[in-house]
Amino acid sequence: MSKLVAKLRPLRTKIDRLDREILKLISERADVVAQVGTVKRRLGLPIRIASRERKILRTLTDLNTGPLPSSSIAAIFHSLIEECRRFEASSCEIRDNSHFAQSQNQVKTVAVIGIGLMGGSLARALCKYAPEYRVIGFDPKLSRRATTEFKLTNTIQEALQADVVALAMPVSAILAFLRKEGAHLRPGTIVFDLGSTKKLIAETAKRTLPRGVCFVGGHPVAGKAVGGFANSEADLFQGRPFVLSVGSSPPERRAAREIERLILRIGGRPHRMNAADHDRMLALTSHLPQLLATALAATASRTLGRRLPIHGSAFFEMTRVAESDFVVWKDILETNKLYIANILVSYQNILQSFINYGDGRATQALFDEGCRFRKKLRLKKESSC
Amino acid sequence: MSKLVAKLRPLRTKIDRLDREILKLISERADVVAQVGTVKRRLGLPIRIASRERKILRTLTDLNTGPLPSSSIAAIFHSLIEECRRFEASSCEIRDNSHFAQSQNQVKTVAVIGIGLMGGSLARALCKYAPEYRVIGFDPKLSRRATTEFKLTNTIQEALQADVVALAMPVSAILAFLRKEGAHLRPGTIVFDLGSTKKLIAETAKRTLPRGVCFVGGHPVAGKAVGGFANSEADLFQGRPFVLSVGSSPPERRAAREIERLILRIGGRPHRMNAADHDRMLALTSHLPQLLATALAATASRTLGRRLPIHGSAFFEMTRVAESDFVVWKDILETNKLYIANILVSYQNILQSFINYGDGRATQALFDEGCRFRKKLRLKKESSC
Repeated sequence: MSKLVAKLRPLRTKIDRLDREILKLISERADVVAQVGTVKRRLGLPIRIASRERKILRTLTDLNTGPLPSSSIAAIFHSLIEECRRFEASSCEIRDNSHFAQSQNQVKTVAVIGIGLMGGSLARALCKYAPEYRVIGFDPKLSRRATTEFKLTNTIQEALQADVVALAMPVSAILAFLRKEGAHLRPGTIVFDLGSTKKLIAETAKRTLPRGVCFVGGHPVAGKAVGGFANSEADLFQGRPFVLSVGSSPPERRAAREIERLILRIGGRPHRMNAADHDRMLALTSHLPQLLATALAATASRTLGRRLPIHGSAFFEMTRVAESDFVVWKDILETNKLYIANILVSYQNILQSFINYGDGRATQALFDEGCRFRKKLRLKKESSC
Repeated sequence: MSKLVAKLRPLRTKIDRLDREILKLISERADVVAQVGTVKRRLGLPIRIASRERKILRTLTDLNTGPLPSSSIAAIFHSLIEECRRFEASSCEIRDNSHFAQSQNQVKTVAVIGIGLMGGSLARALCKYAPEYRVIGFDPKLSRRATTEFKLTNTIQEALQADVVALAMPVSAILAFLRKEGAHLRPGTIVFDLGSTKKLIAETAKRTLPRGVCFVGGHPVAGKAVGGFANSEADLFQGRPFVLSVGSSPPERRAAREIERLILRIGGRPHRMNAADHDRMLALTSHLPQLLATALAATASRTLGRRLPIHGSAFFEMTRVAESDFVVWKDILETNKLYIANILVSYQNILQSFINYGDGRATQALFDEGCRFRKKLRLKKESSC
């Protein structure tokens, strides 16, 4: 037995050595990819050229002599190409935005209030990609030792002196902050939030913030399955939409441009949308999917008892977000109750038509409509980098 | 401009060279992984040791000096480790089942009727992993040139002479085959199908097949987004459940053991389940998810008109199967109408409770229930290889 165990060690050492060599080649490949990106940008070519990718995959699977099946080789290289492409896209964007750094000769301070997944990622992203900002972090629950990347303060007063105050908390905490601290902000400050619903926050900001303090509502449509500062990362916003809801006065619009610059610097894609439209859109694309996944997992749990099901990949992926914590969702469901109920009713009507199946023609029409929509969505995604 | 274009070529040649080197190292790594698998099997250790994987990923992201972000390095190596692990698991299984080949000294003929994604994959898998079977393919729509891997016949009569007749067609075509050709099968033949619903097929087989012909209902819970022979592959069934619905007579049980052997040989995981239980289970885990995805995409299409949405990953993955073709689903929805309507009603009740949100306590209970279920499901999957 112990002889067998001893056999594992040299094999694992060999795997580790191979992994280091693979890592080196991958980094070399990324360097070349960045050069290709520069040329492509000058030529006005898209980052992704699907035919070139297909050709690479075909060549490699043809060259493959095992032992891995070609489907595995394709999966591994698909992931490699995808990550290189993402890097190529983000490095182009950073270069595209580099003139901002030069145009900003005044150092601005950004206070990030709430250093969880979102706040931590925002602070890290600013430190990494936008060194022209000075970053302060404030979170009563976070020990000073948790990060050395940006300055932490344990007095809310210091955080409130910043030029930009970013509220990176659950919606109810943002509302509570606006009600309690809003009035103490000094004129000239830009307040900016990262909450998941926008309408109630915008209304509350309007009521609570003093004259001269500008508010910009924000929502990065980015995330991770796991929360907390430990899982935050500087690249969380790369290539992701970042919705901004902006008031109509000239100072508010100037403030929004300032926040837009900040978002571009950290790799996000700013997208203006008024608060009500945002909440309606997210009711459809985020809140409804969450409820559908939860309902699917709960239905399965009730139907199966303690058994686990025989299932394919669709069931597995369509229940994924059912693992979300209700703590995160409570605020969203409460502050977007009406739009969610509206979209649920439309959705229920379609499900009802499946129950009344009939001759299948109505169902066929729905399949065709859904299929057309999803194809457009996929093609847009595939061509977006 | 043309100078710039000329710059792309050497860069791409460099990428291609790097890819070939990476491929070589990956294949070398898979060889070592197979050796580790052999040792682990003898020690009775599981294929997947999560702590070892985490350590590999941590070490590599620590070693990474860019230009790719560490999240990309982790994603690429995660894919690499996953594929190697799958290979390690499947090569163990093949070795575990190798005694079957020795115990089968009689060459049996398998006729695969319908050479699309499923039939093509079954035929290819038998040729690759189970050379003790002689494989005949029959598909009126397929030209003889489409495959050289297995023998094709253009007379149904020859196919009907095989020891095992595998029906790899849509459910309605299987039903039509049983009604039209069933009576011509000779005693001793095992008929075996790969249809997506089981109850109606089992009942039809019972009515149409002559005495002495044994029927085994089968459903490989495996698939791909794209259909057709061109997309079929020998590894499609590796590690996937393969449901078998078996009658109770001794000859039927012997026939089922024969089919079970065949499935094990191609890497599938046979799972006995009676036809009604299968249809009820799949109504929950396959048919309901399909309808939910279609309804979500159709709701989005109706709500948004021609606009495309701002969305996160959950919306994208939860609409994925909405791209399915109705042609495939028509038969399933028609032959499993009742169980689907039942599960839809249970599901509707849960959605209704979200519309009547109230104080959130009922919703919290559903989130908790769904979350517990999904966690168990994920942990089972993570430990299953």
